Amino acid sequence: MACGEFSLIARYFDRVRRSRLDVETGIGDDCALLNIPEKQTLAISTDTLVSGIHFLPDIDPADLARKALAVNLSDLAAMGADPAWLTLALTLPSVDESWLAAFSDSLFEQLNYYDMQLIGGDTTKGPLSMTLGIHGLVPEGRALKRSGAKPGDWIYVTGTPGDSAAGLAILQDRLQVDNQPDADYLVKRHLNPTPRILTGQALRNLAHSAIDLSDGLISDLGHILNASECGARIDLDSLPFSDAMKRHVDPDQALRWALSGGEDYELCFTVPELNRGALDVALGNFGMGYTCIGQISADVEGLHFQRDGKPVTLDWKGYDHFAQ
Amino acid sequence: MACGEFSLIARYFDRVRRSRLDVETGIGDDCALLNIPEKQTLAISTDTLVSGIHFLPDIDPADLARKALAVNLSDLAAMGADPAWLTLALTLPSVDESWLAAFSDSLFEQLNYYDMQLIGGDTTKGPLSMTLGIHGLVPEGRALKRSGAKPGDWIYVTGTPGDSAAGLAILQDRLQVDNQPDADYLVKRHLNPTPRILTGQALRNLAHSAIDLSDGLISDLGHILNASECGARIDLDSLPFSDAMKRHVDPDQALRWALSGGEDYELCFTVPELNRGALDVALGNFGMGYTCIGQISADVEGLHFQRDGKPVTLDWKGYDHFAQ
Repeated sequence: MACGEFSLIARYFDRVRRSRLDVETGIGDDCALLNIPEKQTLAISTDTLVSGIHFLPDIDPADLARKALAVNLSDLAAMGADPAWLTLALTLPSVDESWLAAFSDSLFEQLNYYDMQLIGGDTTKGPLSMTLGIHGLVPEGRALKRSGAKPGDWIYVTGTPGDSAAGLAILQDRLQVDNQPDADYLVKRHLNPTPRILTGQALRNLAHSAIDLSDGLISDLGHILNASECGARIDLDSLPFSDAMKRHVDPDQALRWALSGGEDYELCFTVPELNRGALDVALGNFGMGYTCIGQISADVEGLHFQRDGKPVTLDWKGYDHFAQ
Repeated sequence: MACGEFSLIARYFDRVRRSRLDVETGIGDDCALLNIPEKQTLAISTDTLVSGIHFLPDIDPADLARKALAVNLSDLAAMGADPAWLTLALTLPSVDESWLAAFSDSLFEQLNYYDMQLIGGDTTKGPLSMTLGIHGLVPEGRALKRSGAKPGDWIYVTGTPGDSAAGLAILQDRLQVDNQPDADYLVKRHLNPTPRILTGQALRNLAHSAIDLSDGLISDLGHILNASECGARIDLDSLPFSDAMKRHVDPDQALRWALSGGEDYELCFTVPELNRGALDVALGNFGMGYTCIGQISADVEGLHFQRDGKPVTLDWKGYDHFAQ
């Protein structure tokens, strides 16, 4: 339903360098046609980003494209899936060619990096927003689900959650960081999060459950606990903080951001005792940090925190876009 | 990224009556997981509908759900695909429970009718719009493409194109129809078009090419001609008009709507001479009209019209949402 001048927009997105072998028909027909390899399961996720809600209206279009894709890739990472195809439904208030050029250049750079193909979409006139549909492949029966956590599993996170919230606070002048490399690092964690695709794939045989941190550790780990019908204990002393966070944010605020800051797009996953050695072998050479922060338990309900081995009560909720 | 009160919305859409066998994981994880049957190709299409552009802001939410799904189903029909799964990304300015109840009731009624399953999506706050991602299955190598038309193929349309534009004109007080059943019929063709799913599937072995009429016959048949690198002659005398159209719309306006009205969601397809008999057998028992309106030709470029066997020149373009 791209019409009038908006059909021009499509030109920015019709530039497949080479077609993936599994794409029979890409852009240009009523539907894309895809041939799924044998013994692969299809993983599909959809996310909408609305201007003023999910991103600042004056965001650099190249950053926006990277982040929109990263947010969706992160859902594939959390399932252990291999990225394959993207659909992009883009709603724009007007045709701004320099904006479109920067956005689409950045998007295709990322798509090429991940060996993904844009297979369709829609361009419409309206308030700035976009919906991405991402499609990945995972070997049959090997997807990482939220529902697989078992009592005794150790709980891990990748990276240093909370950095994204700190970066957003810098962008919104709620946090002053006088060291430019540290400020740049935190802002980059917000604008340009790294989807943990390779980590997710490495976890296929090792983790019992996984989720990506989009709404904050409390909220997202809570989804694993609900789906797996178990509780967990988190050791607050073991939460990993970045050097930039430790240098510029007081410990209480850092803890708050780590637990409920949102938009980190790190992975949270659970691993049985038996697989911990294999985990270290599998992830050790990725150069990416991962930290054990607690344990799944059958004898508690929900999420419990401890410090120095003693229970601590926290009452923060997951990050809420409408509560800021 | 559904947050705060918006997480409530998800409840309206988490009511799968029974899961399709090919859905391993539906709503409730980072991704849906789907198992594609052997020797089936996946067909994917995405359409965005924006309030004030694609539908009137005061549209009945039940009508909106039906139309949004029909628009997407029509893309599957044009490929000869069997509907399977839907993703729905819904952006709403506020939480209106009666609106949501009416919209979701209507959506699930249609999904159940087509044996489809809602497998995921997103609910966000913002100006009213929605993006649907529709997924269907078609036997390997049997999808109907735009690019398959051959010189000598006969060109057909289903139904009576133009009715949708007449219905929209009634809704916008640009057309007065004093006969209520006729007015109701035309408005229904606009608000509640019928995706030609069964027809599309019946055409798999018979048609060389197909497209659905979303932007008008001139524009959409033009896509077949471009993709197939051939021209066509259309016999204006053979264009089918509904009785309601013939009774209330002057012939010149009716022709304009039939050729460039848009949103009919009928199929336009091309069939070789050899398959015309089989076509009549296959479609004859559907109770749905289809009409031969012209022929694909190698000796003309683009679309040519004739009346009483003589060339006629028309200069209308396809329906344009931004040109109204």
